[in-house]
Amino acid sequence: MNELLSVAQAVDLVLRYAGDFGTETVSIEAASGRVLRQSVRAERPQPPYDRVMMDGIAMRCGSGPDLPCEGVLRAGGAPVSLRDGRGCIEVMTGSVLPEGTDTVVPIERLSRHGKILRLESGYTPQKGQFIHRRASDCEAGTELLSRGVRLGGPALAVLAANGCASVEVSRIPSIGIISTGDELVDVDAPVRGWEIRRSNEYAITGSLCSRGFTRLERSIVPDDLEATTKALEAQLSRHDVLVLSGGVSMGIFDHVPKALGRLGVERVFHKVAQRPGKPLWFGIGPEGQQVFGLPGNPVSATSCGVRYVVPLLLAGQGLRSDGTYPVILESATDRIPTLTRFLPVSLRHDDEGRVLATSRPMSTSGDFSHLASTDGFVELDPGQEQAPAGTRAVFHAW
Amino acid sequence: MNELLSVAQAVDLVLRYAGDFGTETVSIEAASGRVLRQSVRAERPQPPYDRVMMDGIAMRCGSGPDLPCEGVLRAGGAPVSLRDGRGCIEVMTGSVLPEGTDTVVPIERLSRHGKILRLESGYTPQKGQFIHRRASDCEAGTELLSRGVRLGGPALAVLAANGCASVEVSRIPSIGIISTGDELVDVDAPVRGWEIRRSNEYAITGSLCSRGFTRLERSIVPDDLEATTKALEAQLSRHDVLVLSGGVSMGIFDHVPKALGRLGVERVFHKVAQRPGKPLWFGIGPEGQQVFGLPGNPVSATSCGVRYVVPLLLAGQGLRSDGTYPVILESATDRIPTLTRFLPVSLRHDDEGRVLATSRPMSTSGDFSHLASTDGFVELDPGQEQAPAGTRAVFHAW
Repeated sequence: MNELLSVAQAVDLVLRYAGDFGTETVSIEAASGRVLRQSVRAERPQPPYDRVMMDGIAMRCGSGPDLPCEGVLRAGGAPVSLRDGRGCIEVMTGSVLPEGTDTVVPIERLSRHGKILRLESGYTPQKGQFIHRRASDCEAGTELLSRGVRLGGPALAVLAANGCASVEVSRIPSIGIISTGDELVDVDAPVRGWEIRRSNEYAITGSLCSRGFTRLERSIVPDDLEATTKALEAQLSRHDVLVLSGGVSMGIFDHVPKALGRLGVERVFHKVAQRPGKPLWFGIGPEGQQVFGLPGNPVSATSCGVRYVVPLLLAGQGLRSDGTYPVILESATDRIPTLTRFLPVSLRHDDEGRVLATSRPMSTSGDFSHLASTDGFVELDPGQEQAPAGTRAVFHAW
Repeated sequence: MNELLSVAQAVDLVLRYAGDFGTETVSIEAASGRVLRQSVRAERPQPPYDRVMMDGIAMRCGSGPDLPCEGVLRAGGAPVSLRDGRGCIEVMTGSVLPEGTDTVVPIERLSRHGKILRLESGYTPQKGQFIHRRASDCEAGTELLSRGVRLGGPALAVLAANGCASVEVSRIPSIGIISTGDELVDVDAPVRGWEIRRSNEYAITGSLCSRGFTRLERSIVPDDLEATTKALEAQLSRHDVLVLSGGVSMGIFDHVPKALGRLGVERVFHKVAQRPGKPLWFGIGPEGQQVFGLPGNPVSATSCGVRYVVPLLLAGQGLRSDGTYPVILESATDRIPTLTRFLPVSLRHDDEGRVLATSRPMSTSGDFSHLASTDGFVELDPGQEQAPAGTRAVFHAW
């Protein structure tokens, strides 16, 4: 057997061809979960004015205890001034500190007597209290968000607070998910005893959708060279990335590699030292389209989708993290002497803050029935010896 | 001060009013990320037939080494029979084991000599090898997916493989996100020096969207009792859940509680022993609508959204987990004597598989600028003493 690529080598090759799928401008309403591709700077100092932090009154420190009220300033109201240094102005949380005042007293410390507000007996306000000073959080122009962050709730709020009604984000690539093989029957069609329903593509689309890759088109090609070539040509013209499953093993009806060759898709590698997923195929189309040929076995296809397709897509978004993290094996686990092992696991969190992985080995068929009860897989390096309980391994979520 | 509800008491009250938002039927194409509300059983035995596991030949064990080839059976092809017990049939991975054969030999172990396929010299196949027996994974009718699971890639594939073109899932509730307060200016409008843009609602929608709650309507009510009442009446009639932010503190312009009272929304609680977020308000509308009044402070609103609104919504989906998990504090952290503390943190994974939380205390204003660099918050019980480094705390993602 020829020396196979290691998983690390294969991932490196894939990432070397990871393109930038470009940027697009979306409204803030549509930006949740997208990856920012611009810097966002403070529109104004933060806070933009000396801001009142409590409902109560603004006064000059040292005056009182009886403070004639000159008026009320609500949050959002235009700034006002205190006319008489011995008086006060009722203020709301968020309102502008009135000119001529330097101290805020919460309403709980006051009693009302007609137009007079009286400080609680024995209460001595500290000068400057309950005032959040202009620019104390940041100056105008300070960078608040940088390229490459995924926009969650707080980041969206930063956009809103700084007037970004639309924002430049990474374009979501268009992805063709293609199943090959005559044995595949649609989910809603009658199925004969020897036929199998299309399912790999649903596992792959699930993994992609949950990561925000929702521009997917599913299609199918039969086990015929001409039809396969024609279908793949159309898919190559429409998509940035193609993900095929099935059709990459050695069977005489496996026309996919031949069809891809005809279409100018150059093979980067075929086969990786891993189980499942050894027959993985990866190539590059004439316009830089990344083309994955995943093995037809369901667990193989799903594992390779997560291990190879997802990192390429995330890199193309400009994200710094691929979302994997280390976990601890709960029990001793066999390695494979010459192959990296992708082992389905369920995760749990223990009382010491650790993430523990319980292995759920699949039956040889690698069918989905058991996979649905797992969270993802861990990657075990090749080796003669068992990985003992307590071994650290990298976890990849489905 | 009256005895305030603890966080645990308040969450219990909220969950006591957590309704079931019902179910709806969606196509498998739209089911990614949804919560299953039916049982899914195996449509057929799995595998549905004795399945060939390798590309190669099917033969009767003991025959050979020269095996006249009677034909080719592709995956998806109708079953065939071996006519002559000394011959073989070429088979593909996934095809039906031909009747009269009991053993599969991979193509790598064979050489082709005209119509004869010859076993590799010295190679002795084991009877039954490379055959995945009918029903060895499961019998027809076995439960493969149960209610309450969120549909990820492998679960979608199970649906597809078992003919579920549509599926019953938890209905996503309709949620009205309502900002109150005259100070709020739209993200794309000119903003005067003393005005603040609407931003809380974007933080909340971000937290909800990332968890699949995408049926959101954002609106605003001014600081006026009549207008507030009218607006809230319309929102109550349209939504399952209302999430208001601002307008629940003690200011004289805070009309929300009064308006809700007029509309028959009964207060369940107001104020919780927590910081930030003490003024949290929760009530129940005349038709069971859950109504949250989040404090106007951005960090308070966002924290309360995650701590109270999200668990109610997840419970309403029938999900068993609220997605929180324990993490370890990296450094000693002050508790608050009488209040639960919600402390923004950034997470990292260490080499021992632990999830570590670095605290990122906010400035008093609780503005979003710093929050966007955090992952969520940890919840620290009230206490006189510091929580030392290494303390375990529950983490809530934004």
